[in-house]
Amino acid sequence: PLCLCWALGLGPAAAAAPNILLLLMDDMGWGDLGAFGEPSKETPNLDQMAAEGMLFLDFYTANPLCSPSRAALLTGRLPVRNGFYTTNAHARNAYTPQDIVGGIQDSELLLPELLKKAGYINKIIGKWHLGHRPQFHPLKHGFDEWFGSPNCHFGPYDNREHPNIPVYRDWEMIGRYYEDFKIDLKTGEANLTQLYLQEALDFISKQQASQQPFFLYWAIDATHAPVYASKQFLGTSQRGLYGDAVREIDDSIGRILRHLQQLGISEDTFVFFTSDNGAALISAPNQGGSNGPFLCGKQTTFEGGMREPAIAWWPGHIPAGGVSHQLGNVMDLFTTSLSLAGLQPPSDRQIDGIDLLPVILQGKLIDRPIFYYRGNEMMAVRVGLYKAHYWTWSNSWEEYGKGTDFCPGQSVSGVTTHTQEEHTHLPLLFHLGRDPGEKFPLSFDSEEYQQAMERISGIVQQHKDNLVPGEPQLNVCDKAVMNWSPPGCEKLGKCLKVPESDPQKCSWPH
Amino acid sequence: PLCLCWALGLGPAAAAAPNILLLLMDDMGWGDLGAFGEPSKETPNLDQMAAEGMLFLDFYTANPLCSPSRAALLTGRLPVRNGFYTTNAHARNAYTPQDIVGGIQDSELLLPELLKKAGYINKIIGKWHLGHRPQFHPLKHGFDEWFGSPNCHFGPYDNREHPNIPVYRDWEMIGRYYEDFKIDLKTGEANLTQLYLQEALDFISKQQASQQPFFLYWAIDATHAPVYASKQFLGTSQRGLYGDAVREIDDSIGRILRHLQQLGISEDTFVFFTSDNGAALISAPNQGGSNGPFLCGKQTTFEGGMREPAIAWWPGHIPAGGVSHQLGNVMDLFTTSLSLAGLQPPSDRQIDGIDLLPVILQGKLIDRPIFYYRGNEMMAVRVGLYKAHYWTWSNSWEEYGKGTDFCPGQSVSGVTTHTQEEHTHLPLLFHLGRDPGEKFPLSFDSEEYQQAMERISGIVQQHKDNLVPGEPQLNVCDKAVMNWSPPGCEKLGKCLKVPESDPQKCSWPH
Repeated sequence: PLCLCWALGLGPAAAAAPNILLLLMDDMGWGDLGAFGEPSKETPNLDQMAAEGMLFLDFYTANPLCSPSRAALLTGRLPVRNGFYTTNAHARNAYTPQDIVGGIQDSELLLPELLKKAGYINKIIGKWHLGHRPQFHPLKHGFDEWFGSPNCHFGPYDNREHPNIPVYRDWEMIGRYYEDFKIDLKTGEANLTQLYLQEALDFISKQQASQQPFFLYWAIDATHAPVYASKQFLGTSQRGLYGDAVREIDDSIGRILRHLQQLGISEDTFVFFTSDNGAALISAPNQGGSNGPFLCGKQTTFEGGMREPAIAWWPGHIPAGGVSHQLGNVMDLFTTSLSLAGLQPPSDRQIDGIDLLPVILQGKLIDRPIFYYRGNEMMAVRVGLYKAHYWTWSNSWEEYGKGTDFCPGQSVSGVTTHTQEEHTHLPLLFHLGRDPGEKFPLSFDSEEYQQAMERISGIVQQHKDNLVPGEPQLNVCDKAVMNWSPPGCEKLGKCLKVPESDPQKCSWPH
Repeated sequence: PLCLCWALGLGPAAAAAPNILLLLMDDMGWGDLGAFGEPSKETPNLDQMAAEGMLFLDFYTANPLCSPSRAALLTGRLPVRNGFYTTNAHARNAYTPQDIVGGIQDSELLLPELLKKAGYINKIIGKWHLGHRPQFHPLKHGFDEWFGSPNCHFGPYDNREHPNIPVYRDWEMIGRYYEDFKIDLKTGEANLTQLYLQEALDFISKQQASQQPFFLYWAIDATHAPVYASKQFLGTSQRGLYGDAVREIDDSIGRILRHLQQLGISEDTFVFFTSDNGAALISAPNQGGSNGPFLCGKQTTFEGGMREPAIAWWPGHIPAGGVSHQLGNVMDLFTTSLSLAGLQPPSDRQIDGIDLLPVILQGKLIDRPIFYYRGNEMMAVRVGLYKAHYWTWSNSWEEYGKGTDFCPGQSVSGVTTHTQEEHTHLPLLFHLGRDPGEKFPLSFDSEEYQQAMERISGIVQQHKDNLVPGEPQLNVCDKAVMNWSPPGCEKLGKCLKVPESDPQKCSWPH
C-alpha cells in the first residue's frame, strides 16, 4: 500500500493510509436503528458496529433531500456552493430526476478525484444522483468503478413517456430497472441489496489482494420508496416491508464488516455509516422509516429531516463504545477522508466539512454550526444546543391538501407552518437538549433567548457575508435528457428514441 | 438465608430465594434512557445495566397514572379489580391526593405480605401512594420498613387549606416536605434522591449482614413534577432540570448495583427497573420526560402513556445483552417476585400478572394481552403487535382550552380526540411494529383488520366476561382526611387542626 504518514501521534500501526468505506443509506431516519431506540430493535449488526465503534448522536446531512445531500458529501461543500440547488422558486428542495439538465460541475473537486492522488482505487456501488448526462458520469469524477444507477429506482415506466432507469457497470449501462433488474412492487421483492453486497465483498477482496488502498462508497437504496428486500428477508421484520429492507441492510453490513475482519484489514479500514436525509414520513408506515423523537421528516429542515444515524468504526483506532455529541455533517466525511489519506482539502474554495479525526480518535469536541438549507435559503442554524429557525415551512397548503404530509400526526403551532413564514428578524429558537422535538420555542423576551441569539446572529452574519453561491444546477428540466440511450444501450438493444429538446423550468413544489 | 428451591433447573447456585429489588421510577418515559434512544444519552449506568441484563422493549404499566399503577404492581391485579379506580364519571384517571378517602383494602394481598411467608424483610423507600390514612399504612400491608411519603411531593402548602405532605420513617412521620425536607422550586434543588440512595445502601448492607433475604421497593420520585436534583447534579444535563434528575437517578442506580457487587450479593439479587407511567408531557420541556417515538403521554392510553422503559438485571442468571419483546406489565413483577421466592400467587382471586422467569431465564415468549384502562373503562387492548382502541380520548376540550395538553405537538385525526369517542363496534386498529406512533389506523375493510379483530374480539370478550370489578376506592374526597396530624406529629410539634369532615365526590377531569 501507499504509505502516507499523518501527524496524529498514533504510532507506527496507523502509518499507512487506511481504506475508506462509506456506508450511505437512503432515507433512513435517526430512529431506525436499535442503537438509536427503534422499538423493534432489529439491527443487531449495526448495534454491534456502534458498540465496537463510536456513535454520533448529533450528526446531520447538508440537505433534507437526496441529490444535494450526496453532492455535499462528495464535495465537502454546502449545496448552495456546489450548485445542487434551484432558484426557480423560494426555498425549494430540488434533486436530479431523469429530466434534470444539470449535475455535478467539472469545477467541483470530488472526494474520489482527490483520493486518487494518494493512490486510492475508488468505487461507487449504488445510487450516484449527481446527474446522469455523460459529463456527470461518476467515472469522470474520480471513481474507477461503478455498479449502480444514476437516479432513484422509480418505475416501472413505459419507455415512451419515460425510459426505465438504467443500471451501470462502470462506463456502460448493463440493463434497466424493472426490465433486467426486477423490483416487484406488489411483494416488495428485489435482490438488489444482495447484488450491492456481493459487489462490495468482491471489490474489498480484490483490493486487499492488490494491496492498494480503496475508497468504497456504498450508496444503497433499499429503504427509499419503493422499498424492497430479497426473498429471504421478506416478512421477517416486525416493521413490515420497510423493516425487511433494514434487516437485509443490517445483515449485509454485518457481512461486510466480518469480511474486513476475515481478510485481516479491519484495522486498516475506516468505516462510516450514515444516511442521506431523514426518514420519508410521507411513505410511512409501510415504505417509510422513523425519525425517533424528532419533528417531521425528509424535505423539511426540522430535526427529523436532517439529523441522521451515524456510526464510525475502525477497530484498533476508535475506542469501542464511544459516544460523541460533536455536531457532525456528511460534508465532514469529505475532509475526514482526505485527512485519513494524508491529504489537505482544496484551499482554493470554501470547504464546509471539518476533519472529525480529533473527535473520533481523541474525543475532542469542535465548535461549529450546522446550517439547514432549502434551495438557497438558510432556513435554520444550530449552534451548540440551540437551533434558530429563520424560516419555517413544512409544505404548502396546496400540497398538504393533496395528502402530502411531511409531518404526519405532528403539528406544532407556528412551527410546522404550511405557508413560508419568515422569522429573520426574530428567529424561533429551540433548545434541542430540553426539547429535541422542537415543540416549545423559547420566549422571545427571555434572557436565554437574547444571549443565545446574540451568539447565533454573529455566526449567521459571518456565514452570509462569506457565502458565494455556486451556479444553480437544478433549474432546468428537459425530456430529451432522460435516460433514453445511455452508453452501452446498443449492445443490449435497449436504446430508446430521444424526443426533441424542450427545456423548461423544473417545478419544485416543496 | 431461608432456602426455598424452585423448579427452574438452574442448579444449586440459584437454589436460595434471591433478594428482590424493584426500582420504580415516577413519570419516567420510555424514551428517557440512552439505551432507549434518548438523544443526549446521559444514562451510562442504566445503559450498562441493560447491557449486563435484559432490555424489555414492550413493557407496560397497568394504568397511565401513578396510584393505580402502583396498586397494580403490588397486588398483581388490574386497578379495576383492586379498587384503584373511580366511577364518578366515565373513563377517568383517579389517584390518591391528600383528600382521598380510600386506599388499599385489607382484602387485597400485597407482594410484601406474601413475601413475608418466605422470610423476606421488606422495605419501601419513597412514594407509597396507596392511601395515606392509618389503615392504608405500608407497614400494615406487609412492609417492615418505610422511608418516604404517602403522596406526591406537591407543595409548599400553607398548612391551613392544605397541610404539607409528611415524610415517614416506618410508623411515624419525621417531618414534612418544604419544611424539614426542602425542595427549592426556584432552583430545583433537593437532596431527596441522595437520602433515598443512602437508605437503600444501608438497608442492603444491613440485610446482607443479617443474612435474611430482602425485598426492596425503591419508589423514588425526582422525575415527577416538581422535578428536583441535588446540588452536584444541577445544571449537569443537556436536558435541563429534568435531565439533572435523571442523571442523579442514573448515578444512584449505578451505586446501588455496585454496592450489591461489592457485597458479593449481585448474583443473589434480582433487580428490575421500570416506571409507573409514561412521561408527563404536560410538564415538558423543563419538568417532563420523553416517550420517544410514541404517541402522547401520562394520563392517556396511547403508547406514550403506558409503555415503559424496563430492564431486568441478575448477574449469573440473566444472560448479558438480552432483549425481549415479551409483552410485560408491572403486574408481572408481583407474580415474578413470588416465583423467585418459591411462592405461588394467591388462588382465591384473579391475578393479572404473569411469571416472567421463563422469559428472563429461558428467553421464552408468552402470549398474553395488555389492557389499557381509564377508570373502569377498557380503552384499548394490545394483542401481539396489534393494538385496538375501543375508546379514544386525550382530554376534554375544556381542559385542553385551559392549556392542559397530554399530546403537545401531536395530533392524529380521529385518534387523539378531545371528546370521548366510542369505537366499541369498530375499534381503531394499529400495527405497532409498522406504526409504533399510532398514526395510521388500519383500513376497516382490509383483510388484516378483519383477521386481527377476530382474534382480539375473542380475547376482549373473555376478559369482560370474567371481570369482577372491585369496590371503587377513589370516588370520595374529604378535606378532613388530609395529612393534618399523621402519627408522630406530636413529638415534632407538627400536628395541625383537622377540619370538619365534608365528604364529596372527587372531581377527576381526565
